[in-house]
Formats: sequence, structure tokens, C-alpha cells
Amino acid sequence: MTETRPSRPSAAGATGTAEPAPAASPDAEPALLAAANSRPGPRIPVWFMRQAGRSLPEYRKLREGIGMLESCRRPDLVTEITLQPVRRYGVDGAVLFSDIVVPLAAVGVDVEIKAGIGPVIERPFRTWADLDALPELTPSDIGFVTESVRALVAELGEVPVIGFAGAPFTLASYLVEGGPSRDLLRTKALMYGDPQLWRELVARLAQISGTFLSTQVAAGARIVQLFDSWVGALPASSYREFVQPASRAVLDQIAEEHPGTPRIHFGVGTGELLHDIAGTGAEVVGVDFRLPLDEAVGRIGAGHAVQGNLDPALLFAPWPVLEQQVRDVVRYGRSAPGHIFNLGHGVPPGADPDVLARVVELVHSL
Amino acid sequence: MTETRPSRPSAAGATGTAEPAPAASPDAEPALLAAANSRPGPRIPVWFMRQAGRSLPEYRKLREGIGMLESCRRPDLVTEITLQPVRRYGVDGAVLFSDIVVPLAAVGVDVEIKAGIGPVIERPFRTWADLDALPELTPSDIGFVTESVRALVAELGEVPVIGFAGAPFTLASYLVEGGPSRDLLRTKALMYGDPQLWRELVARLAQISGTFLSTQVAAGARIVQLFDSWVGALPASSYREFVQPASRAVLDQIAEEHPGTPRIHFGVGTGELLHDIAGTGAEVVGVDFRLPLDEAVGRIGAGHAVQGNLDPALLFAPWPVLEQQVRDVVRYGRSAPGHIFNLGHGVPPGADPDVLARVVELVHSL
Repeated sequence: MTETRPSRPSAAGATGTAEPAPAASPDAEPALLAAANSRPGPRIPVWFMRQAGRSLPEYRKLREGIGMLESCRRPDLVTEITLQPVRRYGVDGAVLFSDIVVPLAAVGVDVEIKAGIGPVIERPFRTWADLDALPELTPSDIGFVTESVRALVAELGEVPVIGFAGAPFTLASYLVEGGPSRDLLRTKALMYGDPQLWRELVARLAQISGTFLSTQVAAGARIVQLFDSWVGALPASSYREFVQPASRAVLDQIAEEHPGTPRIHFGVGTGELLHDIAGTGAEVVGVDFRLPLDEAVGRIGAGHAVQGNLDPALLFAPWPVLEQQVRDVVRYGRSAPGHIFNLGHGVPPGADPDVLARVVELVHSL
Repeated sequence: MTETRPSRPSAAGATGTAEPAPAASPDAEPALLAAANSRPGPRIPVWFMRQAGRSLPEYRKLREGIGMLESCRRPDLVTEITLQPVRRYGVDGAVLFSDIVVPLAAVGVDVEIKAGIGPVIERPFRTWADLDALPELTPSDIGFVTESVRALVAELGEVPVIGFAGAPFTLASYLVEGGPSRDLLRTKALMYGDPQLWRELVARLAQISGTFLSTQVAAGARIVQLFDSWVGALPASSYREFVQPASRAVLDQIAEEHPGTPRIHFGVGTGELLHDIAGTGAEVVGVDFRLPLDEAVGRIGAGHAVQGNLDPALLFAPWPVLEQQVRDVVRYGRSAPGHIFNLGHGVPPGADPDVLARVVELVHSL
């Protein structure tokens, strides 16, 4: 360890490219929290959605022979996998290694994560009886999460743990489709066709998602991100009517149980929804790569920080092209009162970790 | 045959639900062409993307044991499959049964359409040598298309044949990815990373796509649709820089070789791109289901008809819900100078043909 601040995991050992943290007093607000709260901070914070996972060789090695859901339930693995990208890149936050269906499995839903496919649910959600069979989540169902977050906080010191959960619409889409789907036809058919059952379903999922997140904050996560990955499949009017109240309930639960914890909310392809996503109360609105951040800020409205939004495809472009785009993202991000640099979607499995390290270094230098 | 106008295929035999065509003089402009040209017409025209294909039992029966590409090359099958939905639904246009990769196969690209996957290309496009190996398309490569369209025109009488082609970006995405892809990482990496090769590639594909469409018009298609299915993966600035010139070249070729033929241009998830898609010169801009048509019209700008945009998921909702949404689409469509009713994406394979028949009947009654 050659770091001057022992509480921060060293990145130097892994690649030698990560930027050392700037000098700051121990009680200064970390860059990630400052930006999320739209306050001035020491630098532009950066982290990557899916930073913990398949793109890292040390991750693939650790996961050999261990199923995805099992690895999400073992605190030793969750802790190590969550730390790996922090060590390697010197990112400004450590997003809890988990999967969107972990809380569903925790309440007893028969779900498997199949390699090359994704989550597959044995008996898809169809009826009121299925709702009765979907219990609420209690913190005792997810002791492994509490244990993992506590271990991470002890290890990470000032680098915030980012709590992670899927939003009600996206959880519902997995339950109803029975697996990943491009069009979400069954999900929307239920939503439009039986709005009463739909509303009860997403209310139940809001309880599950909210408790999953709140448990992470109780254990020490200092910021949370609610992922509504597939909600971009809806027009804004449907979002407002069928989704927004449930997502707001999740974020309200965090605000009530852990006031002052900033909440990031993100979905893919949500250009038409940004204003209504901001309407859930999230302090930070995540933006995908389809819209420059300055335009996104105009749609989101005043008083919100933004997160995003480099197109992950650019990680495969030559450095001069990528560098220019990183600079553009940072420039457009200045139109918001706070900006957390991120990709506009998750890290692709084939991304080169050295390229991500170089992006972190560049953002921190700007 | 109990039809009063023998030139129009009867829908009554198939389901008994299709609306008989309104009385009109034989040389009156068909509803589809009137709307596409933003002129008053006899009724709101309706057709469905992918109306010819998997959702129809008579189609599945006809295709038994015959590969997709083979069926696209056999004029007897192309003609029959193209006619099936016209007979059944009494739609206002007959879109040529084909596949987006048919013109690629016609110039010698080694492509297969695998069931449950989609087009798979043996040697994905990577280099300048691959460009040299990609010939231009000549009408003699697609004699089966000419033959099919001529047969259709003879059969259909006043119901227009809609020419069909994939746009350069979407064709490029199949060539570069080697198959369907959710993120188009390789396509974008080539586009951003080697813009010179990219521009030459989409220029070549514009020639292929333009000639594929123009051949259909020469054979009797009276309107064309250029599908840029996956272009919604791009931000507007990238669309303008890397895609729009090639798409415009395709549409220009139609305008030059067959003046007065209306051109529809459509892509999925293109809310941010509508203005620039209109900038290709298309008379009609197709809109997916994410944006109400009145908002879409605002983005597209004056002087264009619109096509769309019922969410295909609504085909699985109870009739009263679906009916209300069909009425809403028609109402919002009145904000454009011309409106062609369609889905906001293709007909899903599991859609009930009787529901589609009822939608046609309703639209024609409004």
C-alpha cells in the first residue's frame, strides 16, 4: 500500500492507471454525494453501471463454477466483486454486486439466472392468486445483503457504497414475461388490460424494492440507484398512470426511513420520460446515451443532478474518438447543478478494463 | 365473389369482418396514396407492418418446410403471402412479403435466416476488403421481385403494392454484427471508429437498398416504405452525421427514377430523430408507439404525413381498452395533413387475426 489515505482501496496495484484521490479533509463530502446533492465537490465523480461483473478478468475467475444467484447471496463474493472495480479504476462509488431479481428470489419466487439468457421464472405472474403468493420482503430475508454492505463499508472507508435495486415496472416485466423480452407484450397487456391487478402488483413490488434498498442504506450504503431498465418501452402517459406512483413509493420509503440519502433513478431509452422520472422525487436522473445531457437537463427541469451518459459502444472506438466524446459528456453535464459521469447503459461484457481506467483518469482530470 | 368491384380482393370470404370498400370512381386516388400525399381521401387508410407473415395461420401453413429466404425468392409464394392479409383484413395496401436481408443475399452475401434467431451472416463486415467484396445490386439480380410485384398488381387492382426495403444503417448493422444485436456495439464502433469506411459502406448499401426499392416501383409498386428498424439506437447528432445522407440517397433515387411515388420512412424508438428522418425527404414519417402522433407532428415539422402508431401490445388487451386507443391514435393523427393508420411496430407473431380485422373495421368507420 503506497496510498496516503489508508481508508481508500488502492487502484495502483491493479493497473497503475487510476488517479490518486485528491487531498481532502477526512470529513469532506465525497465527490459522488456532493454531485448527487447538487453541491460543489472535489471533482466530477465517475462510476459505471455494471462495473462489478463480466468485463473484469478477476471477476470471471472468482465466479468460475458458481451460479449467479448463489454469488449474489455469498457475502464474501459480493464484497470482493463489489470491491474489484474500485481497486482497479479508483471510481467514486462501489455499486453493490447483485441482480435485479435477487429480492424476488428472496421472497420465494422460483427464478433462475440462465447463462446467455438472463432471469427465467418458472411460473410467470398471471392472476390475483399469483399476487397472493407474492410475499412482502423483510430485512431478515436478505441478511446476506446487510452483511455484505457492512463489510464493504468497513473496507471502503470514504468511498460510498451505492445501493442497488430494480424498480417495480422492470421487476414486474420479469415476473409477467417469465424472462427477458424485447417487446414486453405480456407485461403491457396486463397493465392495459387489468389495471387493478397491475396496480396491486407494482405496489407489492414497490414494497419489495423499497425494503431491498432501505436495508442496504441501513447497513451503510450512502446513496442508492433504482434501475427501471425497460421502462423506456412505455409512452409518457402510460408511465405516469401505471408506473410513476409505484416508483415514487420506493423512493419515498428511502426518504422517510433514511432522510438525506440521495436517490438516483435510471432507465434505458427514457428520453420521453425524463420529466416524469424526475417527478418520482429522485435527486439524480440517469440519462441514456441517446440524448445530450444539456437537452436532458431541459426536459428534467430544475433542481436535479444528472448521471450519464457516454455510449458504451464508444469504449470500442479509438482513443481520440472516445476522448472527445468523454469531454463532450463532461461539457454538457455542466448544464446541470450536479453531474455524475457514467455510461448511458451498463458496461458491455467485452469492454477492455484498461479503456475504462483511462476514462476514469480523464474524467478526474477535467 | 360477392364484391361489387371485381378488381379488389374480397375480405368477406376469410373472416366476414372486413369492411367493404366505399364506392368510388375507378380512377379515384386510393386512400393510402391520398393520405401519403397529404391529400383528402375516401377514408383513413390502414395497413400493418408485418401483416404478411407469422401471425396468420394460412401463412404458417403455406411456409411449412420452406426456408424464409427461399420463400422470399419464389414469386408464387411471395404473391400469395402478400395477398393473404389483404384478403383477410381489407387493408389499404399490400406490403411486399420480403426480408430486410433479401437484397444482401441477392448480391451474394452469405446470409441465412435462422428460426428463432433471425439473419445470421457467415463473415461479418470488418474491412475495406469486405467493402470491395460487396457488389452493387442490379435489377437482374432480383427478377423474382419484379415477377412478384407484377403478379400482385394484376391481382390487386386498385389496392396499392407497398415496396419494402431496409435502410442502409439497419442493413449495415446486420452485416457488421453478423446477426441481430441489442446494443449494436460493433456497428457503432465501426461508425465512430472508422468513419471513412462506414460512409463508403452505407453509400454502397444505399445503392443496394435504392435499387431494390426502385425495381419494385418499376414493376408496379405505387408507394414504398424504407425501414430503418434499429436506427433508434443513435443520438440525433450521430444520425445526421453518419446515417441521414445514405437514407436520403435511397429516397432520392426513388424520386429521380419514379417521380410522384410517395415514400414512407420508419424506425423504432426514433422519438429524438423524427425531425431528421423527415429531413431525408420522405413524404410520410412512421412513428413508433412511444410518442402520441400530435407530439410527433410537432417534431417532424410541417408538410409531412404520418404513419402509426398503435402499440402492438394493445392487440392483447380487452376490446374496450384497444378500441379507445385506436380512437385516440386516429384523433391525434388528425393533427397531420395526412395519416396512415398502422401499428407502432410490426404485428407480433402471437396476435389474433380477428382482433386485427376488428381494428381495420373500426378505423375505416371513423
